[in-house]
Amino acid sequence: MSNIGLFIGRFQPFHNGHLHAVKFILNEVDLAIICVGSAQYSHTFKNPFTAGERIEMIKAALAEAQITADKYMIIPIPDIHDNRLWVDHVVTLVPSFNIVYTNDPLSTVLFKEKNYLVKPIPFLERDRYEGTWIRKLMVSNGEWNSLVPKAVVNFIHKIKGVERLKLIHKTDRVRETI
Amino acid sequence: MSNIGLFIGRFQPFHNGHLHAVKFILNEVDLAIICVGSAQYSHTFKNPFTAGERIEMIKAALAEAQITADKYMIIPIPDIHDNRLWVDHVVTLVPSFNIVYTNDPLSTVLFKEKNYLVKPIPFLERDRYEGTWIRKLMVSNGEWNSLVPKAVVNFIHKIKGVERLKLIHKTDRVRETI
Amino acid sequence: MSNIGLFIGRFQPFHNGHLHAVKFILNEVDLAIICVGSAQYSHTFKNPFTAGERIEMIKAALAEAQITADKYMIIPIPDIHDNRLWVDHVVTLVPSFNIVYTNDPLSTVLFKEKNYLVKPIPFLERDRYEGTWIRKLMVSNGEWNSLVPKAVVNFIHKIKGVERLKLIHKTDRVRETI
Amino acid sequence: MSNIGLFIGRFQPFHNGHLHAVKFILNEVDLAIICVGSAQYSHTFKNPFTAGERIEMIKAALAEAQITADKYMIIPIPDIHDNRLWVDHVVTLVPSFNIVYTNDPLSTVLFKEKNYLVKPIPFLERDRYEGTWIRKLMVSNGEWNSLVPKAVVNFIHKIKGVERLKLIHKTDRVRETI
Amino acid sequence: MSNIGLFIGRFQPFHNGHLHAVKFILNEVDLAIICVGSAQYSHTFKNPFTAGERIEMIKAALAEAQITADKYMIIPIPDIHDNRLWVDHVVTLVPSFNIVYTNDPLSTVLFKEKNYLVKPIPFLERDRYEGTWIRKLMVSNGEWNSLVPKAVVNFIHKIKGVERLKLIHKTDRVRETI
Amino acid sequence: MSNIGLFIGRFQPFHNGHLHAVKFILNEVDLAIICVGSAQYSHTFKNPFTAGERIEMIKAALAEAQITADKYMIIPIPDIHDNRLWVDHVVTLVPSFNIVYTNDPLSTVLFKEKNYLVKPIPFLERDRYEGTWIRKLMVSNGEWNSLVPKAVVNFIHKIKGVERLKLIHKTDRVRETI
Repeated sequence: MSNIGLFIGRFQPFHNGHLHAVKFILNEVDLAIICVGSAQYSHTFKNPFTAGERIEMIKAALAEAQITADKYMIIPIPDIHDNRLWVDHVVTLVPSFNIVYTNDPLSTVLFKEKNYLVKPIPFLERDRYEGTWIRKLMVSNGEWNSLVPKAVVNFIHKIKGVERLKLIHKTDRVRETI
Repeated sequence: MSNIGLFIGRFQPFHNGHLHAVKFILNEVDLAIICVGSAQYSHTFKNPFTAGERIEMIKAALAEAQITADKYMIIPIPDIHDNRLWVDHVVTLVPSFNIVYTNDPLSTVLFKEKNYLVKPIPFLERDRYEGTWIRKLMVSNGEWNSLVPKAVVNFIHKIKGVERLKLIHKTDRVRETI
Repeated sequence: MSNIGLFIGRFQPFHNGHLHAVKFILNEVDLAIICVGSAQYSHTFKNPFTAGERIEMIKAALAEAQITADKYMIIPIPDIHDNRLWVDHVVTLVPSFNIVYTNDPLSTVLFKEKNYLVKPIPFLERDRYEGTWIRKLMVSNGEWNSLVPKAVVNFIHKIKGVERLKLIHKTDRVRETI
Repeated sequence: MSNIGLFIGRFQPFHNGHLHAVKFILNEVDLAIICVGSAQYSHTFKNPFTAGERIEMIKAALAEAQITADKYMIIPIPDIHDNRLWVDHVVTLVPSFNIVYTNDPLSTVLFKEKNYLVKPIPFLERDRYEGTWIRKLMVSNGEWNSLVPKAVVNFIHKIKGVERLKLIHKTDRVRETI
Repeated sequence: MSNIGLFIGRFQPFHNGHLHAVKFILNEVDLAIICVGSAQYSHTFKNPFTAGERIEMIKAALAEAQITADKYMIIPIPDIHDNRLWVDHVVTLVPSFNIVYTNDPLSTVLFKEKNYLVKPIPFLERDRYEGTWIRKLMVSNGEWNSLVPKAVVNFIHKIKGVERLKLIHKTDRVRETI
Repeated sequence: MSNIGLFIGRFQPFHNGHLHAVKFILNEVDLAIICVGSAQYSHTFKNPFTAGERIEMIKAALAEAQITADKYMIIPIPDIHDNRLWVDHVVTLVPSFNIVYTNDPLSTVLFKEKNYLVKPIPFLERDRYEGTWIRKLMVSNGEWNSLVPKAVVNFIHKIKGVERLKLIHKTDRVRETI
C-alpha cells in the first residue's frame, strides 16, 4: 500500500517554507494532499487571498518546481470553528490518507486524539518564511519577493494582491469607529 | 434614469456625522438606501442596539431633519463574515443602486472588485462624530447628547439605552472568568 | 400613541391580494411595516425573486397606488428555520409595532404565545390572488398580468423574470438525477 | 466498569413505546443517556414541542414510573444536518457511554462505522406506539391518551399542546401559497 | 491564453456519463476543474458517499482512463443553499476559469446572470447513465457495474458502499416515526 | 408550586466556586437546572473541555458532594452568538424555571429585559475560584488541585486534561503565522 500524507495550511501566501515542506513530504509519501484551510475567508489582513487564488498560486509554484501533478492534490477546507468536529470535517473532504504532517500543536492534539499518525515538518528558517511576516513586508513596501516562489510573485502581481492587502490593512480602525 | 446611492453603517448610534452624510448623499442622488449593517448583533459594547432600534432612531432623526420618507429606505443587513460573498449579499437584499458611498477601505475594495462606482463621504469633524467615542462617553457619563440628533437622544432615553450600555460594558471581564 | 402594524409575506410576486391587504391595514394603523420573508432565497420556483427585487416591486406598486412612503417601511427578514426564535428574530429587525396582521396559522400561534395582538386580513378572492397560482400561470404562459399591480408587471418584464422562472422550473428533475 | 447506554429519539411526544425502551435499556445498563434529538425544532407538525418541553415530559413520565433520577440523564441534541459529523457531535455533548441503543438504520450505520457497539430495542406494538400516529390522532380528536404515560397527557394538556398542534397542522397549505 | 472549463456534479457515484463528459470537456479546454458539489453531505440515499470518497473515485476513474493529472483538478464545493451567493461561492473556491459546462438549468441561469459563458454537455444515453437510477439498481441488486468505470466499482466494493446504501435506504420511514 | 432555578456557566473546569453556587441555589429552590454554556466549543485555552466532559465532571462532583440526582439537571447550551435570541434559545432548551441565578451583567440585562427574576450568587473567594486562573495554573504547573472538587481532579487526570491544555496553549502563535 502506498503512503499518503496530509498537509494543512492557510498559505497566505504560499511561500518558500511551504514549498520546502511539500518537497520534504514528497520524499516520504506517494501522494501529498495539500489542504487550503480557512477556505471561506479572504480580503482580510490575516487571509487576503481567496481559496481559489491560493490554489492557483500553489499549482503554479509546484509546476515551477517541476513537481508533477500526479504527486499531489489541492483541496480547500472551510473553517467550521468547532474543534470537536474538525478532524472528521477534514477527513471526509479528502481522499484517505495515513500520515498527517503538521507543526501546529492544536492539529497535533486533535489528530492524535483520533489515533492518526502525526509527524512534524522540519522548518526552513522559520523566522523569515512565515505568512504574517511576509504580509507585513507587503504592506510596508519591504522586500518580500525573495521569500516566495517566483510563480507566486507573478500571480500576486497579476491579481494586484499587494494593492488589495494595503487597502485592507487600512480598514480595521475605520470599521470599528464608523 | 435616476441615481440611487447606497450608504452602509452600523449606526451604533446614528450620530450627527451620519446625518451629515445622508444629507450629502441626498444632494447627489434621488434615493438613498441606508443599510444598517451587523443587523443581527445587539447588547454588546460594539453593537448595543438591535437593528430594529437603529432603524427607529434613523427614521426619527430623518423626520426631525425634515427629510421626506420618499427620499430614502432603511434596510437591515446581517453580517455574513465572508468577504467573498458580501457584495452579492448586500446587492440582493436592496433595490438596485448605482453609487456606493463609503469611507471604509474594505467596502471600497470589495465593491470596486465588482466594478461598482464607489465615492467617499466628506467627514464632519471625524474625531468627535464617531460611534466608539460616543459610546465611551455614554458609559462614563460624558456629554454625548450634542453629538447625536435630538430625536436619537430621546429614543435612547426612552429605551433606557445608556443603562443597558453601562451594564453590558461591565460584562466582559466577568464573562471571561466565570 | 400611534398604531403600527406588521405584515409579513414572501411576495413572490407582490400581487393584488397583497396590495388589498396593505390598504386594509393602512385603514387601521398609522404605519405598516411590510416584512419580506424568506429574504435570503431566490432563483427557485417557490422563491424566484431576490429580496431586493421584491422590495423594488412593492415600492413601485405602492407608489402607483398613491400610498405615500411615510405610511410604510419595507424590511427584508431572512428565514432562520427555528420557530422557537422566530418571533424575536422578527421583532429585533423592525421598529416597534403593536398589531400583527396575518392569516398564517403558524405565525398566529407563535406571536400569540408571545402575547402579541394578532388580527386576520380579509382575503381578496383567495383562489386567484395567490403566489403559487400566479407563478404557475407564468411558466405556462397563462394570463397573470391582471393579477398583479401594473408596476409589478413592468418590473418583472424589466428583469426578465418570467424567463428566469421558466428556466428554474425546468431544473428540478435534472438536479436530482445528475 | 459500569455500562452506560445511549438512547436517541425525537420524543414528539414521549410515548409508552419510549418508556418501554427506557425500561428495557435500564435492565442492561447502569445509566441511560436519553438524547432529545432535533432539539432546535418546535412548532411544526413533525416537531411540535420544544426540547425543554420534551425534557419536562420525559422527566415527569420517568418519575411517574418510579425510575430514580440517578439512573438516567436527559440531554438535548440539536440536528446538524451533516451525517459526516453527527456521531462526533453527539459524542461530545454527552458523558462517555459504551452501548448505543437504536432501531434506526442510519444511526446504526453511522455509529458502527465509528466502531461503537449498537444494539436494537425490542418494539412494543410498533404500529400503535409511534409518534406520527399519535400526532395524527391528536389533530383528528382520536383517542391518544392511552398511548402515552399519564404524566405526559397531563403535561400536554397544561401547555395546551393539542390546540397548538391543530393550529400548526393547518398552516402548511397557507404558508406555501401566500 | 489557455481555456479552463468548470464541470460541477454531485457524482453519487461517478458514472460513465460523467467520464464521457470529462473527456468531451478535455477536448475543448486545457484544464478541467471538476467540482464535487453538495460536498458536506453523505450517508443519505441522494448523497451516499462523502466528498473525499467521491474525489477518490473520480481520481481512480480518470487514472484508469489514462487522463493525466495535469489535465484536471478536483475541488469539493459545499452547498450553501443560497442561490444569490452560489456563483461567487464557487468562483472563489476554484482557480479562475472561462467556460462553465453544465446541463442544469438553474446553474445555467445563475452563471449567465453573472455573464459567464455556459455550454451544454452532450449526454451519453441519459436514461441509463444517471445517478439516481444507478443508486436504485444498487439497493435492488440490479446490474449497475457496467454503468460506472471499473475503478469506481472496485472502490465502492472496497468501502462496502452498496451495503451502506441499502442500510441508509431503509432508514427513512423509521426516522419519521420514532 | 415548586421553585426551579437556572444556573449558567461554562465550567472550564467545574471548580469549588461553582459547587458553592450550586449548594447556595439548592437552599432556595427545589430543582437546579445547570446549563453548560458554549457547549459546542472545546480544545481551546478558553474552552478546553467538551460539553460531555464538563457534564461528566459536574455529575461526579455533585455525587461526591452527596447531592442527589433528583435535585438538579445538567443541560448543554450551544452559543448562538446572537444576543437578541439568546434568552429564547436557553428557555426552549430547558424545563420551565422561575429564577435565574447569575452574576454576569449581560445575562442579567437579557433576562431582565424579558421580565425574568434574576438573582445574584454570593461569590466564594472570587479571586481564587475562577476558571481562567485555574487554567493558567494548570499550564504553569501551579497548584490547582485544591481549587476544584476531588472528583474533578480525578476526571481531568483520567482524560489527560492538563496535557491537552498545555499543548493547546502553545498553539496560538503558531496558528497565526503558518
